Amino acid sequence: MLSASQQKFLTALQVKKYRQKYRKFTVEGSKLVAELLVQKRIAVVSVFGLERWASENAALLAPFYHLFNAVTENDLKKVSALQTPPPVLAVAEMPEQPQPTLETGVAFYLDGIRDPGNLGTIIRVADWFGMPAVYCSPDCVDAFSPKVVQASMGAVLRIPLPAVELTEMLRNNPDLPVAGAVLDGDNIFTCDMPKHGLLVIGNEGGGIRPNVEILLTRRLTIPRAPGSAAESLNASVAAGILAAFVAATRPPG
Amino acid sequence: MLSASQQKFLTALQVKKYRQKYRKFTVEGSKLVAELLVQKRIAVVSVFGLERWASENAALLAPFYHLFNAVTENDLKKVSALQTPPPVLAVAEMPEQPQPTLETGVAFYLDGIRDPGNLGTIIRVADWFGMPAVYCSPDCVDAFSPKVVQASMGAVLRIPLPAVELTEMLRNNPDLPVAGAVLDGDNIFTCDMPKHGLLVIGNEGGGIRPNVEILLTRRLTIPRAPGSAAESLNASVAAGILAAFVAATRPPG
Repeated sequence: MLSASQQKFLTALQVKKYRQKYRKFTVEGSKLVAELLVQKRIAVVSVFGLERWASENAALLAPFYHLFNAVTENDLKKVSALQTPPPVLAVAEMPEQPQPTLETGVAFYLDGIRDPGNLGTIIRVADWFGMPAVYCSPDCVDAFSPKVVQASMGAVLRIPLPAVELTEMLRNNPDLPVAGAVLDGDNIFTCDMPKHGLLVIGNEGGGIRPNVEILLTRRLTIPRAPGSAAESLNASVAAGILAAFVAATRPPG
Repeated sequence: MLSASQQKFLTALQVKKYRQKYRKFTVEGSKLVAELLVQKRIAVVSVFGLERWASENAALLAPFYHLFNAVTENDLKKVSALQTPPPVLAVAEMPEQPQPTLETGVAFYLDGIRDPGNLGTIIRVADWFGMPAVYCSPDCVDAFSPKVVQASMGAVLRIPLPAVELTEMLRNNPDLPVAGAVLDGDNIFTCDMPKHGLLVIGNEGGGIRPNVEILLTRRLTIPRAPGSAAESLNASVAAGILAAFVAATRPPG
């Protein structure tokens, strides 16, 4: 049974203001909740699931049984952010977001990514290629919104996602290399790729903004085929290609 | 003024069955309609726009003025597939879909891509890297659905998109090289990339299906960082990375 106050609280967590007020977010679906329950970095607050889900996942749920609330499909429909409500939804503490020094490794810096699907997909790219973090400008879409959590396929549970201005990062670390994806930079098919520092991905519509572009120490371009009339690549595709070329030139191990 | 029968027709074109029946599809928004009006491959059937849009785009619209219908914002709200109706919507003939022989060049073959955003993004990747076509298995989401047209940023207007079974392609061209993205193939960071033929991208959830996997002549893998817990990459990101590595090893010109 879902109480009225529980329903109100879970629905509130779909809104950024309340996620930030309570420092909590929701994780939906068997697969993502299973990942949440086995990882150690993020604290589990409560689990709302069907009896059937609980009995099928008894071993997984055992250490958290005191946090479990059995609910109905109808309850889940009321609080799910998904079109088809999954059999389980959990609430988690928003994790601390450490800021690695980037003396080794390349991390994304996202300059105003607004589409939740793109942000989740980019965090998933960073997870695949083993990036130490994904830095987000404070006006990026919130990394703990339900759509981002879903599109990241659980990567938000594994990767630090500090929200910080680039100028602030550079104040603390003025020698940090900052490469960025632009339309008139070095051809990534032939140039050396960065070995450490930041890789800036710009906003979906407008690319990297002037106040960030001025701080770039390297300008990189994914070359377009001669004769192509395409104007740009999707932001998460560009992020994937750049991360792959960085990884391809990284010394093994 | 939008007549009742026009409204019914435009709304019907949001549904695949009626797009196929009438062999027509819709293109929305100033940017995409402008692309439609300047290209020569696809025939324009009609244009529904605000008076303001028409006067701001008089030169563009001049050759098509006999196809123009002035409508109101309220009319556009009734027939738009977008959340925020743009000032113009056009109807276009569905183009013939030539099937290039692929003696030179690499083209995607998409095996059951179901998400319209992914399909549009992959067609945009193909456009950027100058692929000769994007072949789609017949159960892919329809390439002329409003969401695909939008996500492709107009690339559907430029690239042939034949819907065809892979077995049928191979019957006509048994020596066609067929590379595919799988989890246990050759490392694309170090192996030779295909110079011509097909590059198969599998379904979002399940990857390449067994009946297609058995036809692969090359198996390619985007290597994951050691220690990463990520299970997969988004289908359109994987497509972008593979297309970039093919393009990077292509002789210039």
